[in-house]
Amino acid sequence: MRMYDIILKKRKGIELTKEEIEFFVNGYTNGEIPDYQASALLMAIFFNKMSKEETKNLTMAMVNSGDKIDLSSIKGVKVDKHSTGGVGDKTSICLTPLVASLGVPVAKMSGRGLGHTGGTIDKLESFKGFSVELTEEEFIKNSNEVGVCIVGQSANLVPADKKLYALRDVTATVEDISLIASSIMSKKIASGADAIVLDVKVGEGAFMKTPEQAKELAREMVDIGNSLGRKTIAVISDMDQPLGNAVGNALEVKEAIELLKGNGPKDLLELTLTLGSNMLVCANKASSFEEGKALLEENIKNGKGLEKLKEFVKAQGGDASYIDDLDKFPKAKHIVEVRALEDGVISKIHAEQVGIIAMKIGAGRETKESIIDLAVGIVFNKKRGDKVKKGDVLAYIHSNNENNIEEAKSELLKNVIISDTLGKETPLIYDIVK
Amino acid sequence: MRMYDIILKKRKGIELTKEEIEFFVNGYTNGEIPDYQASALLMAIFFNKMSKEETKNLTMAMVNSGDKIDLSSIKGVKVDKHSTGGVGDKTSICLTPLVASLGVPVAKMSGRGLGHTGGTIDKLESFKGFSVELTEEEFIKNSNEVGVCIVGQSANLVPADKKLYALRDVTATVEDISLIASSIMSKKIASGADAIVLDVKVGEGAFMKTPEQAKELAREMVDIGNSLGRKTIAVISDMDQPLGNAVGNALEVKEAIELLKGNGPKDLLELTLTLGSNMLVCANKASSFEEGKALLEENIKNGKGLEKLKEFVKAQGGDASYIDDLDKFPKAKHIVEVRALEDGVISKIHAEQVGIIAMKIGAGRETKESIIDLAVGIVFNKKRGDKVKKGDVLAYIHSNNENNIEEAKSELLKNVIISDTLGKETPLIYDIVK
Repeated sequence: MRMYDIILKKRKGIELTKEEIEFFVNGYTNGEIPDYQASALLMAIFFNKMSKEETKNLTMAMVNSGDKIDLSSIKGVKVDKHSTGGVGDKTSICLTPLVASLGVPVAKMSGRGLGHTGGTIDKLESFKGFSVELTEEEFIKNSNEVGVCIVGQSANLVPADKKLYALRDVTATVEDISLIASSIMSKKIASGADAIVLDVKVGEGAFMKTPEQAKELAREMVDIGNSLGRKTIAVISDMDQPLGNAVGNALEVKEAIELLKGNGPKDLLELTLTLGSNMLVCANKASSFEEGKALLEENIKNGKGLEKLKEFVKAQGGDASYIDDLDKFPKAKHIVEVRALEDGVISKIHAEQVGIIAMKIGAGRETKESIIDLAVGIVFNKKRGDKVKKGDVLAYIHSNNENNIEEAKSELLKNVIISDTLGKETPLIYDIVK
Repeated sequence: MRMYDIILKKRKGIELTKEEIEFFVNGYTNGEIPDYQASALLMAIFFNKMSKEETKNLTMAMVNSGDKIDLSSIKGVKVDKHSTGGVGDKTSICLTPLVASLGVPVAKMSGRGLGHTGGTIDKLESFKGFSVELTEEEFIKNSNEVGVCIVGQSANLVPADKKLYALRDVTATVEDISLIASSIMSKKIASGADAIVLDVKVGEGAFMKTPEQAKELAREMVDIGNSLGRKTIAVISDMDQPLGNAVGNALEVKEAIELLKGNGPKDLLELTLTLGSNMLVCANKASSFEEGKALLEENIKNGKGLEKLKEFVKAQGGDASYIDDLDKFPKAKHIVEVRALEDGVISKIHAEQVGIIAMKIGAGRETKESIIDLAVGIVFNKKRGDKVKKGDVLAYIHSNNENNIEEAKSELLKNVIISDTLGKETPLIYDIVK
C-alpha cells in the first residue's frame, strides 16, 4: 500500500477502505508518512468529503493509535458528557455530581481551555488542593466509590488526533464535519464510556455558527458513536451569549455550586437538566426525559447533588469546605461595575468577544504556555432580553490588574448591545439529535 | 501575509493576487513555507483550479525564482521548441538544424530522459565528444555563429518548479492543467526565447490521454506564452504509437540524420515539417505554413539541413563524421528479429509499453541514477496500418545483454496488436492551437 495511491483515490472521490485509512493513520502517527502527504489527503478529504463508513473507520483508527481507557471495572453504564466549547460553560461542574448522585457513574477525562473558551479541569483547580492528575487506578477507584471522577487527558490518548489536528490547524483543513466529528469522538471512545451525551454549541461564540452546521456536526457524531456501539445523543444549545452569568474559572465554579444549592441561573439550569436527563436515559436510570428531569430536580432540592460535589472534590484532594463558604475561593482585588450608557433592551451579548475580554484579563490562555488567573473574569448582571436603564449595572469585571480594567470595560460595552427591541428570540435548546 | 490565509482563500475558491502567488512561490523556494502547507495549497488548486491570471502570475513567479537566460545578444527572433514527451521522439535533432539552416537561431536548453520517454541531450551524446555542458558565453557564441545550440538545463533554472514538481509528484497533484502548463512554460520563458512552438503529445504513450485534454493543455500554455509577450503556437500530435521507427538513443539519432538525407519515416517528416513551418512563421521567415513547409523541404533536398547538423555537432565537440558514416555510432552486440505470430493488420503499437521495454533493455532511465546504453533499443519494421503475414519481421531488438532479449521479445509481441482490420484511423496532427 502506498500513501500516494490513497491520496489519488480520495482526490478522485473514491471511498477509502478500512485498511487504507488505518495505513494512513498508523503511518502518519509513527512518522512514516510525511506531513506533506497527510495535508494533501486532508485537503482532498475537505473537497470530496468522507462517507459515514470512512468517518467511522477514521475514528476507530485514531482510537487505536494510543491508549484506550478500560472502564469495565466500574459498575453500571458509564456515561460521558462532552461540550464542543463555549463561553461561561461550567455545566460539567454541576451536572456530573448531580447525575452521579442518581447512581450513574461519570468517569471523565477533560481538557484545559485555550483561546476564548475555558476548560473544566482549569476551573476545578479553583478548589485548593484539587488534583486532576490521578493514576488510572485512582481514577477507577474514585469512579466506583464516589461515582464521579474528572481528570486531565492521558498524554497518549489518541496521539493520531493530536498530530492531525496540529496539521489541520496550519493547512486550512479544520472545517470539515467528518474530520471535526472523528476528532471529538475518537477521544470520547478512547476514554472508555459506554454512552456519550454531547452538547453541540451553536452561535457566534461557538465553532458552529448556524443551527444547520451544528445539526450536521451533531448528526455526524451521533452516527459515529452509535455505529461503534456507544449510545450517543447530542443536544444543540445556544452560544450566542455566554452561558449563565459568570465567565472565569472560580467565578464559574461558584455559579455551578449555586445551581446545586437551588440558585442557578435559568439557562444554566435548563441546560443542566436537559443534558442530565439524557444522560439518565442513556444509563437506563430514567425511561423518559421528563422522568429524568424530575429526578434531577429532586436531587437539587434535597441537596444530594451538592453532597456528591463535596464528596467528589474531597476525593480528588480538594478543599470541600469552599462549597459551604464561597468566600474561600480565590478573589480578585478589583471588582468594577460596568453600567449601561443608554436605555433599552439587551439584544445581544457577543459571546466570543466576551471570552476574549475575559482571556485578556487573565481568565484564559492566549497560548498553551499562558498561566491562568483563577480569580478573574466577568459576571453579568443582565442577559439578553433584559430591559435596562442608563446607569444600570450590566456586569462586573473581576480583575487583579487595574491597568487592564478600562480597556475591558470599554470592550465589554461594545459587546453588550442595547437596542429598542429584542429582535428575534433564540432558544436555549435548538434540537436533540439521537 | 500568511500562507495559512492563502490556502484558506484558495480553498474557498477566491482568486489569489499576484502578490499572494509570489509570496507562496518565493517562500516555498527559499524554505520558509513548509512542504505541508504547499501541498495543501496544491490540492486546493487541483479542486478549485486557477484562473488565466493566476496561472500567468504563477508562471512568472516561478521564472523569477532562479536564473533567466538572456538571449538578447543572439541576432534574430529566437524560437524555442518543446515537446511534452513521447516515445521515439527525435524531432529536435533533425528539426533544429533544419530550421537554423533557414536563418532562424535556435538556442535551446533540453532535459535528460526519465521513465519511458527519452531526452534530446542523451541522444546527442551518441556523437563521440558531443558536449551539452557549455558556458553561457559558448551557448550564445554557438547560437550566433552556427545558428543552433542545444545544452543541458542550467542548474538554477526555475528552482521553484523543481521543488514544486517533486512535491506534486508525491502528493497526487501533478494532473492539473494550470500547474502542468505553468511548469513547462516557466522553463521555456526562463530559457529566454522570443517565441515558442510546443508539441503537445496525445495518446496512450503521452501524459495527455485524450485530444480534449491535450487541447486544454495546449490552450493553457499558448495563453500563458502570449500573455507574457512570447508568440506561442502548439501542435497537437499523435503518441498512440512511437514516432518514426527507432526507439533508443543512437538509433533515433541515425533516423533523424536519415530524415535530413531525405530518407525519413513519413510521420517523423510530417511532424518535423509541421513544427518547423510554425517556427518559421513565428520567426517571420515564412508568411504561411505552406511557405515554411516548402522552404524546409527545399533544405532537406539541397542538403543544407544536413550540413547545418554537421556544423552544430562539430561546434559542440562532437565527431561530425558519424553523419556520413552511420556505422560509427555505438552498435548493439545482438540484433534480434521479432516476427509476427499471425496474419492481419497492425491496429495498435502501445507506445508507453514500447518505451518501457526499451528502457528495460537499457535505452532509458528507471531512476535518475540509471546509466543509459546509447546503442540499444527497438527499430520497427512495421507500423500501425501495415498489413503483415505470419513470420514477417515486425521489429528488431538491439541489445547488449542476451539475457534480456527473450523477455523484450515476448513483451513486444504483446504490445504490437495484429487485428483483422485497422479500426479507427487516427491522425498524426490533431490540431494547431494559436
